[in-house]
Amino acid sequence: MPPFASIATDFGAAYTAICSGVVQRLAPSAKVLILTDEITPYAIVEGALLLRQALPYLPEGVHMAVVDPGVGTPRHPIAVRTRRGDVLVGPDNGLLMPAAEALGGATAAFVLEDPAYRLPEPSTTFHARDIFAPATAHLLNGVDPAAFGPETAPLPLDLPGPEHGDDGTLTMTVLYEDRYGSLILSAEAKDLGPPRFGTPATLSWTSSDGTPTAIRVTYEETFGSVHPGDPLLWTDSSGALGLAVNQGSAAHRYGLTAGTVLTLRPPNGDS
Amino acid sequence: MPPFASIATDFGAAYTAICSGVVQRLAPSAKVLILTDEITPYAIVEGALLLRQALPYLPEGVHMAVVDPGVGTPRHPIAVRTRRGDVLVGPDNGLLMPAAEALGGATAAFVLEDPAYRLPEPSTTFHARDIFAPATAHLLNGVDPAAFGPETAPLPLDLPGPEHGDDGTLTMTVLYEDRYGSLILSAEAKDLGPPRFGTPATLSWTSSDGTPTAIRVTYEETFGSVHPGDPLLWTDSSGALGLAVNQGSAAHRYGLTAGTVLTLRPPNGDS
Amino acid sequence: MPPFASIATDFGAAYTAICSGVVQRLAPSAKVLILTDEITPYAIVEGALLLRQALPYLPEGVHMAVVDPGVGTPRHPIAVRTRRGDVLVGPDNGLLMPAAEALGGATAAFVLEDPAYRLPEPSTTFHARDIFAPATAHLLNGVDPAAFGPETAPLPLDLPGPEHGDDGTLTMTVLYEDRYGSLILSAEAKDLGPPRFGTPATLSWTSSDGTPTAIRVTYEETFGSVHPGDPLLWTDSSGALGLAVNQGSAAHRYGLTAGTVLTLRPPNGDS
Repeated sequence: MPPFASIATDFGAAYTAICSGVVQRLAPSAKVLILTDEITPYAIVEGALLLRQALPYLPEGVHMAVVDPGVGTPRHPIAVRTRRGDVLVGPDNGLLMPAAEALGGATAAFVLEDPAYRLPEPSTTFHARDIFAPATAHLLNGVDPAAFGPETAPLPLDLPGPEHGDDGTLTMTVLYEDRYGSLILSAEAKDLGPPRFGTPATLSWTSSDGTPTAIRVTYEETFGSVHPGDPLLWTDSSGALGLAVNQGSAAHRYGLTAGTVLTLRPPNGDS
Repeated sequence: MPPFASIATDFGAAYTAICSGVVQRLAPSAKVLILTDEITPYAIVEGALLLRQALPYLPEGVHMAVVDPGVGTPRHPIAVRTRRGDVLVGPDNGLLMPAAEALGGATAAFVLEDPAYRLPEPSTTFHARDIFAPATAHLLNGVDPAAFGPETAPLPLDLPGPEHGDDGTLTMTVLYEDRYGSLILSAEAKDLGPPRFGTPATLSWTSSDGTPTAIRVTYEETFGSVHPGDPLLWTDSSGALGLAVNQGSAAHRYGLTAGTVLTLRPPNGDS
Repeated sequence: MPPFASIATDFGAAYTAICSGVVQRLAPSAKVLILTDEITPYAIVEGALLLRQALPYLPEGVHMAVVDPGVGTPRHPIAVRTRRGDVLVGPDNGLLMPAAEALGGATAAFVLEDPAYRLPEPSTTFHARDIFAPATAHLLNGVDPAAFGPETAPLPLDLPGPEHGDDGTLTMTVLYEDRYGSLILSAEAKDLGPPRFGTPATLSWTSSDGTPTAIRVTYEETFGSVHPGDPLLWTDSSGALGLAVNQGSAAHRYGLTAGTVLTLRPPNGDS
């Protein structure tokens, strides 16, 4: 089987395809899948959660991911070996680590330092093309991650968690907005207690203009369980809790964006 | 030649690429083309017309398409065999049927029921990953569509048609907006009678705020036949009639969206 | 190695993938990379500069590019042979020529005229599918560019240049906006004189509503050299000068679009 690579970026199509071109010039027998070029610019958490969700479904291979607001600063470029056998390539800013966990855990990480595995005269602003893509190609060609540079302990991702209040409330943060305008939250279904589909609860937050807002919402197994235009909480395909509007956009409807803190209050305050 | 698959969705890049990854894990020798990940969310008609237009130009293979507002409800997942030799995979909501027609007609359809050809424990919200993509891979690997489940009669697509008035008017519905803001209409050039390029007609509609609007427009062979910024009717590459603005967006200019009904009145009321 | 093709368009995903499908039907062993489907509609300069930047990093092959406001008019479809060994396919409107230069220069160009290398009955509005994609496939299959039609002298791209004023000012035009809202300008770092990172200068322009605007900006080696939200001039990965906002969008912040003329005045008027 040909070696397999994937590429995920916040670059849009062209700059991502340039990286694919660099990989294919140096490793012409590889298959290269562009996993996404649509991550919200600079959104490390969104990118990290996407990789965690996606990579277990992809063939084993070399997975390059770049959301890199620190390009040109001293943050390290790294390659992370995982227990499943994949190698993850990208900046050392937490982006790769949830996916490494989902692939059985990181077993070692190395700094991409040896200039022999970079393009000549790397730019300061496009490490994806000049450092990460050539590294991906050389890994596909069989170079060992340890050949690139010294071992390193990669930085973890800084993720907000859910908070359980004494009064039965659950406080969560909006992590990102998906393609449909649904909002992925920093909690999982198990944080709701035993699933009780259809039981109404109150979800409240403070809008960006300072107005307090509260809506009635039910936890549902599927979008079609509520009328088109009605809100629901559901468990997305990655296991995260989300706020959606059936056949609509929760982000547009409620003006919610990444970072907003939401409080869920069950009926009568019981959990 | 390696087996060929295409994937068309309303998911955006990442979730579509996850499906491609699932196909490539299970059918590593296949070539997989992402036909589009940009269908307007939930827009079955837009997706169906795109497939009808595109698939005749693609290599014979397995074509998976998912625009699926009913995911999680009892609508069937199906595989449709066509006379050209392709197999179409997707939800039984009409999405696949115009394309099946364009490929010579559907010869049989089967429900994707056998759990052996699904991922373990399919989710309720991501059938594309858990049911349609594995089915695509198994079909690429040579499994017969009839092996997946019982034969079924797929639902047709519910499409508005053109209406010819006694006074020579032609009434059409905006089906969807293309990438350039041009509006694809529920009529074909032949509904205009014999082509008379350059003859002005009146196109009228009621705006969403209730205001009646009418413009002068000509039927033209090519965009460049009118000045930049001027409107025209033309036949798009699929044979459908469309309303465009040369080097501009008809959707923006006229505030038109899918579902709006337009009436075309020829000069002096003759047809 | 399999023959390699790339495709760049302003069509969005679906129409671009149809072209890829046509290539793969006619040249099934080829690898086809979609370089971009996201060029701003009708933006020939943006497309040309993207190709110039990207193609040197891609494998040698056949590169089809279509930004074609003149489709259906008498402009020629052409194939351009380059010194590196690539063949560029697209409309004769300047789009291909900066990339040909970056690949060592154009050595010959030919009109795509022979109907044997087109789809039957080409449409007037989708030459990419009916003329350019089949030509790309036949070139991948080894047909000589000279077999398609008569030799021609391709039109150059009409690009604004920088202007140096007697008072030390540098006048530049915004060429296009990149994915991050950064603005690529019609000048290079060398037009600034010897690089002096961090020295403030004044950048001024007239807004579209007629208001004169001026900002203080520094030339920097990397985005991280200024605070998030602050502007900078930098050299992008293609060598062009750009105006950016660290972790933000210069286009949104300043309301600047392609075509706006900017004047850079160094401190005290010295160059």
